[in-house]
Amino acid sequence: MSSQYGKKLKISIFGQSHSPAIGVNIDGLPAGIALNMDALHAFLARRAPGQSELATERKEDDTPEILSGLVNGVTCGAPLTAIIRNKDTRSADYHELCDIPRPSHADYSAHVKYGGNQDVAGGGHFSGRLTAPLCVAGGICLQILHTLGIEIGAHILRIGGAEDSTFDPVRVSVADFTAIQSNPLPVMRRSAGDAMRTAILAAKEKGDSVGGVIECAAIGLPSGLGDPIFDGIENRIASIVFGIPAVKGIEFGNGFAAAERTGSQNNDSFYMEADTVKTRTNNSGGILGGITNGMPVLFRAAFKPTPSIALEQKSISLSRREDTVLQIKGRHDPCIVPRAVPCVEAAAAIALYDTYLDNIMLNK
Amino acid sequence: MSSQYGKKLKISIFGQSHSPAIGVNIDGLPAGIALNMDALHAFLARRAPGQSELATERKEDDTPEILSGLVNGVTCGAPLTAIIRNKDTRSADYHELCDIPRPSHADYSAHVKYGGNQDVAGGGHFSGRLTAPLCVAGGICLQILHTLGIEIGAHILRIGGAEDSTFDPVRVSVADFTAIQSNPLPVMRRSAGDAMRTAILAAKEKGDSVGGVIECAAIGLPSGLGDPIFDGIENRIASIVFGIPAVKGIEFGNGFAAAERTGSQNNDSFYMEADTVKTRTNNSGGILGGITNGMPVLFRAAFKPTPSIALEQKSISLSRREDTVLQIKGRHDPCIVPRAVPCVEAAAAIALYDTYLDNIMLNK
Amino acid sequence: MSSQYGKKLKISIFGQSHSPAIGVNIDGLPAGIALNMDALHAFLARRAPGQSELATERKEDDTPEILSGLVNGVTCGAPLTAIIRNKDTRSADYHELCDIPRPSHADYSAHVKYGGNQDVAGGGHFSGRLTAPLCVAGGICLQILHTLGIEIGAHILRIGGAEDSTFDPVRVSVADFTAIQSNPLPVMRRSAGDAMRTAILAAKEKGDSVGGVIECAAIGLPSGLGDPIFDGIENRIASIVFGIPAVKGIEFGNGFAAAERTGSQNNDSFYMEADTVKTRTNNSGGILGGITNGMPVLFRAAFKPTPSIALEQKSISLSRREDTVLQIKGRHDPCIVPRAVPCVEAAAAIALYDTYLDNIMLNK
Amino acid sequence: MSSQYGKKLKISIFGQSHSPAIGVNIDGLPAGIALNMDALHAFLARRAPGQSELATERKEDDTPEILSGLVNGVTCGAPLTAIIRNKDTRSADYHELCDIPRPSHADYSAHVKYGGNQDVAGGGHFSGRLTAPLCVAGGICLQILHTLGIEIGAHILRIGGAEDSTFDPVRVSVADFTAIQSNPLPVMRRSAGDAMRTAILAAKEKGDSVGGVIECAAIGLPSGLGDPIFDGIENRIASIVFGIPAVKGIEFGNGFAAAERTGSQNNDSFYMEADTVKTRTNNSGGILGGITNGMPVLFRAAFKPTPSIALEQKSISLSRREDTVLQIKGRHDPCIVPRAVPCVEAAAAIALYDTYLDNIMLNK
Repeated sequence: MSSQYGKKLKISIFGQSHSPAIGVNIDGLPAGIALNMDALHAFLARRAPGQSELATERKEDDTPEILSGLVNGVTCGAPLTAIIRNKDTRSADYHELCDIPRPSHADYSAHVKYGGNQDVAGGGHFSGRLTAPLCVAGGICLQILHTLGIEIGAHILRIGGAEDSTFDPVRVSVADFTAIQSNPLPVMRRSAGDAMRTAILAAKEKGDSVGGVIECAAIGLPSGLGDPIFDGIENRIASIVFGIPAVKGIEFGNGFAAAERTGSQNNDSFYMEADTVKTRTNNSGGILGGITNGMPVLFRAAFKPTPSIALEQKSISLSRREDTVLQIKGRHDPCIVPRAVPCVEAAAAIALYDTYLDNIMLNK
Repeated sequence: MSSQYGKKLKISIFGQSHSPAIGVNIDGLPAGIALNMDALHAFLARRAPGQSELATERKEDDTPEILSGLVNGVTCGAPLTAIIRNKDTRSADYHELCDIPRPSHADYSAHVKYGGNQDVAGGGHFSGRLTAPLCVAGGICLQILHTLGIEIGAHILRIGGAEDSTFDPVRVSVADFTAIQSNPLPVMRRSAGDAMRTAILAAKEKGDSVGGVIECAAIGLPSGLGDPIFDGIENRIASIVFGIPAVKGIEFGNGFAAAERTGSQNNDSFYMEADTVKTRTNNSGGILGGITNGMPVLFRAAFKPTPSIALEQKSISLSRREDTVLQIKGRHDPCIVPRAVPCVEAAAAIALYDTYLDNIMLNK
Repeated sequence: MSSQYGKKLKISIFGQSHSPAIGVNIDGLPAGIALNMDALHAFLARRAPGQSELATERKEDDTPEILSGLVNGVTCGAPLTAIIRNKDTRSADYHELCDIPRPSHADYSAHVKYGGNQDVAGGGHFSGRLTAPLCVAGGICLQILHTLGIEIGAHILRIGGAEDSTFDPVRVSVADFTAIQSNPLPVMRRSAGDAMRTAILAAKEKGDSVGGVIECAAIGLPSGLGDPIFDGIENRIASIVFGIPAVKGIEFGNGFAAAERTGSQNNDSFYMEADTVKTRTNNSGGILGGITNGMPVLFRAAFKPTPSIALEQKSISLSRREDTVLQIKGRHDPCIVPRAVPCVEAAAAIALYDTYLDNIMLNK
Repeated sequence: MSSQYGKKLKISIFGQSHSPAIGVNIDGLPAGIALNMDALHAFLARRAPGQSELATERKEDDTPEILSGLVNGVTCGAPLTAIIRNKDTRSADYHELCDIPRPSHADYSAHVKYGGNQDVAGGGHFSGRLTAPLCVAGGICLQILHTLGIEIGAHILRIGGAEDSTFDPVRVSVADFTAIQSNPLPVMRRSAGDAMRTAILAAKEKGDSVGGVIECAAIGLPSGLGDPIFDGIENRIASIVFGIPAVKGIEFGNGFAAAERTGSQNNDSFYMEADTVKTRTNNSGGILGGITNGMPVLFRAAFKPTPSIALEQKSISLSRREDTVLQIKGRHDPCIVPRAVPCVEAAAAIALYDTYLDNIMLNK
């Protein structure tokens, strides 16, 4: 098994929901980069639990401790490892789940894979909590990309029927990313966020949960990033984004909508703007043949509703090999989509900075 | 750059559309496996060009020559390399494209990446022709998976508004796969195929092209295959499927539809069927926490319309740095989706057999 | 840069000599393995500093804290991360070295590579202290290999002219490994150990240091382990053993001596012992074509003398770009070879267990 | 199993001694590099068989056919694949070896690993013939390194008691490499070559074989190349050099001799020469902490004598499980060391150019 990602920037995620700590090892950070810890903490706060009635009540301050890789706050070229201690754990809540797997959760498949030795408490290594170290690595990459003129932003596009505006595929800007952060929920239109909030609370009220879609954009990328066939930008981003629990689909540019169109409708024609090559539309999401063309990179990720719901569900007893019912205890998010927004940005940042380091020469 | 895929089964794809040959090196095939070359040729014939009015007129028999890895038709444990000679090439058709990139094609991004040294003829290494060696590797994996009781099948779900039935997520069977092959186009309902054919010919008539969606299923997989976080089945399949040119989206199980649902609607409840653990629905597409649960693995891939169309398009001159128009010559598919069906099966077979070899112990 | 090793068992080493902690992430341990922490501590104690007049006076108890991967002392299939806090650090001792690199140490090459940002204190990431996490990973692998009937042992073959007996290449046994541990220094003949001790103390007296050679054997390995060309047992062991600071050479079987012999002298003839295939001699060190043949795997590693010596040395000032002299402060081993013995065993254990997991099928 | 090497420059070797072809896929060559095919052929000629009474009589012109990756002789950024057809094969000579493994050859270990399915003819994938594609890849890397001011040369240091002069560790130059090529055998002192020739012919006369040692130097490398712990220059070079059949040992700088010395004798003191940092001695072989320091990189590889000898040897029958004797037929080198010299240069070139690409930023 492998919880590692990356070619030049090697990210190793470790920990379980209730283990002494969770963390990440980042091997391959260039030396000489000063990290802004306040900015990193602010980024992590966007996914931290226990903040609002929309999220789990589990309280974790999620302050990472950097164990290595820094000298006076500057990267020294050695692997950077950061850990986050687990504090507010209630393993007792999960005892029953050793025998009765939660529908649509990893309990059963992990039970088979690990012969019953997996860490059940809090979902173990499969917990959404493991996105905290992902965000530590991603937050660092976002800071470095910023110095390279590359910015990444995401917002909730859809939750429970409520829909936000989409990014303008050609003109999406840093101003959009800033505006999103000014809203209570990360959306372009505050009213859309209010509708989403209503939908989430309605689900919570019923002991149910809702899914949603997140849209992400990366701007300022040079053209020529990415590689053919198996190492294209789509391959690289998809293989990390599916590392975020609950993601079941991803599309780039206009994605599935492109399948309904003709070439003459869908092709992005080129034109010169001063000496810069641009396209009038951006159905390709800034990626041609797996390689950036200088236009914004755009993708959307679909999140299934949180499988852990309070409502009684049908399941089985692994020990008795018979059908039974399950009433899940513990504290869960009625919708993980709002907290997943920074996770998607983090995943994109890791994938794109790794590609940048891997392609640094751009073959020149 | 890397045109390699796999952890235990390492696939290296090489060649350009008009190079002396294209091919694949497969490192990691177990020894002692007898290959059925007739079955492999039959599989390759499903994607070969020049077969019908729906595809490019380029004629290539695409018979692979096995250069290594076999002794009397049986794998010997050494890397297996197969090549396919390029024959019916018309590089002259592509001369203009050195200066005028085709909209939504890799011409421009490759030009930037490789500093103008890329092989332009026929799309070079970015050509759909490179799916032939992918199918050689995939065809071999399909044969081996068959001996393990694992079967993979795909069909066209949608082209130009025409829609086929979807697989039954719980009951999809080998009979479905066989039925699909009996139709002129690979679909479940022949009438859907006829409508697709009409849509493709209409686009061809106009010098245009159409996109589409392919649905794929893998059955007979043991539960417990796949790994957490970055090496889940979704990650592994997505990172190879995006290696097929024109794929812009992928979803597993009910994918994007799951984002519109509540947990109580979307969760797949467990039940015992005799001593086997099953789920009554399969919205998860047979994957929980990145790991198979024993139900059919299901995914859909969205293909954009072929960017190479006969209609005049707006583009630029790279040498003169000014806007211009482009009239594409050469032979192209009005719709690559029908020929892409075996490519999707091949990609899934490679990803799943690689996972199988990588997980062989299933931690037991 | 990469401080990672392994194909199926991925070891990531992190930390600097004076960072808050050093540690290791082990990704790929099978689930369900009960670890014996007492045995692990006993193994680590063999390399811990501050134990005798032969080693540095730096005191570190080197007790690892397991942050993840265990449930009640049993592996759960998630990555296992262990950290060791750095305590007895005296960074002040190293201030001068920022400007004046120590001869034959990594100070200068790291200065160039990292643009002066490397962690100089205690040698940073290049410190021999990083072999502690290597031994944590190796100690765990040794425990697992033991359950598979595979045992690994090493001893000091040579230090400062004093020479121990070599392992019997054909008959080396667990009894030899046990006997070695019963001596004050890890040698076969106690008298050889006494002579080595004298040589080390003589060097220490002069403010100098000495190098040496370690011999290692692995017994009980099945035949058929390892892969051709670049993944043979020699390649795999060499690429990890050179990860131990100060190693400048490695040889397998009779190694360099084989170069002086004829084929008729050097070939190991086969014979049947009951139904087992054996060789009468073992000049090959148990490896043919990179693959084990069932005989003991044997190798020797050459360690250069510790470059950090108290004697005044010629060096340069990086800031003033001129020649100067250096008087090294800080606490250093007059000979790291005795403490390196468990490190060599650890490296061999990691390489062989990784190969075992990677080859588990032995293609059957 | 894996016959692949490299991080940024991925080399995949394929083929068996008697398969239709052998070859190499090189993934990661930058675009825009013009290859000199005459220079490549001249380099390959140095290892080609059938040239002299010192080598096997098997005749192979070994002219590679480039199947992909080039456009008009210039790299296009796509993987470069080259194949060499096998012509002068006499598989019949090897029939007996299916049952009676050759002592100290891979026949037995491969038989176990591949369950009797391995390609026995000519040694299959384990044949020294597979060094031809290694030299194709290495010859290309040598051309590119030359344009970067990096030169690599090797010579026979020892064969059968005859010894050549060693490279001057500090002053080794291109003139040395040129002089070596002017001798009938690749040595510094022609007389040493004559003595080696006598020793080889004497062994051949007896139906025996001899081993030897090759010394290799790389000059012009920038300081700062290589990475700590597991990706140092020693690790990278060792893991490819052990891919050359018959190599049983490797040492860097003064290697095993360093183990006999004190720190004050062995340390290489720094001094300034104009504005360049140099060391007065080079016992470290140009590598400190795994990273180049700007001095020549030096290593030696020990080759065991060719195991295939004409003299009758003791072996076993795998089918009858009993002892027997073996009389090897077929054509073999009485000493592979002379032909191995370019192979060592090729391996070093691949390892160093891969490191160069992997470290291109040198963290700046």
